[in-house]
Amino acid sequence: MTRRGRFITLEGSEGAGKSTNMDAVCDHLAACGVDYYPTREPGGTPMAEALRNLLLSRWEESVSGLSELLVVFAARAQHIENEIIPRLQRGQWVVCDRFTDATFAYQGHGRKVPLARIEQLETWVQGQLQPDLTLYLDVAVEVAQRRVDAREAEKDRLELEQRDFFTRVREGYLQRAEQHKRIVVINAGQELAQVQEDVVQVVSRFVDQHHKGS
Amino acid sequence: MTRRGRFITLEGSEGAGKSTNMDAVCDHLAACGVDYYPTREPGGTPMAEALRNLLLSRWEESVSGLSELLVVFAARAQHIENEIIPRLQRGQWVVCDRFTDATFAYQGHGRKVPLARIEQLETWVQGQLQPDLTLYLDVAVEVAQRRVDAREAEKDRLELEQRDFFTRVREGYLQRAEQHKRIVVINAGQELAQVQEDVVQVVSRFVDQHHKGS
Repeated sequence: MTRRGRFITLEGSEGAGKSTNMDAVCDHLAACGVDYYPTREPGGTPMAEALRNLLLSRWEESVSGLSELLVVFAARAQHIENEIIPRLQRGQWVVCDRFTDATFAYQGHGRKVPLARIEQLETWVQGQLQPDLTLYLDVAVEVAQRRVDAREAEKDRLELEQRDFFTRVREGYLQRAEQHKRIVVINAGQELAQVQEDVVQVVSRFVDQHHKGS
Repeated sequence: MTRRGRFITLEGSEGAGKSTNMDAVCDHLAACGVDYYPTREPGGTPMAEALRNLLLSRWEESVSGLSELLVVFAARAQHIENEIIPRLQRGQWVVCDRFTDATFAYQGHGRKVPLARIEQLETWVQGQLQPDLTLYLDVAVEVAQRRVDAREAEKDRLELEQRDFFTRVREGYLQRAEQHKRIVVINAGQELAQVQEDVVQVVSRFVDQHHKGS
């Protein structure tokens, strides 16, 4: 596959400020004249969004980490094949709210599914596809929880997890960041304006290096 | 795991007469005083049934064999953990309309997903769990197609597949039957009354061997 577009992902727990910073990334790309496509995981195609809804629903039955993992990768397979790859091949940049780092953090570290299984599915579903740049919005668990608690919306199934779950998720993200150079850790515990400034700075540098156009 | 109940599965393409013969199996078990639980795959729990609906829906997007495979095993993981294993452990027999042989036949042979991937997922999701007896209702593809075409109901996504797909599915089932002694091939091209008689005879022999109760 000749891949011409760039693939940027945004990662972080609920309450890290992902939505606002997703907007900041997209606004910056637009200002630079980059043709980009914003999307999210799980989701990004009609079937993948339906799988997302199942995943976030509250069920009467217990949902195993392995089931979650398989649903996440089923949605990802649809998203990659029908949206991400075709767009990258056309030269479009793709900006995705969460990707496989989230699976390692949530299902791997959070739910304790063996990481080797996630790596196996990653190989089957992604082949060589990896993000070119990942922004991980890192924030202390208590701070993130306070922000989520302050929202009006009813919590989904994953937001209802307890503090030690989110502590493991954060450790998982930080471990991934140590292992992969493409992951840049942003201190998301700062004032929102400062967080956005940091995010835009990283994206700006990346665009300067990779966008030879406009 | 000490497993006391027995696990019987029924396999076959659409049009093989699976529903009617499922009833025949259950009626016979009831007559023998066996405490049994009828269920189906994909499905068998609320979340697994929701996954089944997604799988059989007609989508605007193309659905890859790998996505199908992951959704099927996500549903299976829920079904096994929340229904099948607890019931077998309590001593109940479980009778399931389709199980993993169908995955090898449909996603493996039909969709050409590498069988090694299915074997890997089977190990993760099932551990040691395998059916004790499998009845495969075998019928020529043309005969099955004619029976499905004669129905009033709108066809689901898998029923819309073409003849060479169902030919590969049948070859897949027959190959499984050669490899696994637990699979008994029933000639489902015969008159329905004869098919039921054959089915009941096999189940009757199995009950005699395994049901030391009542």
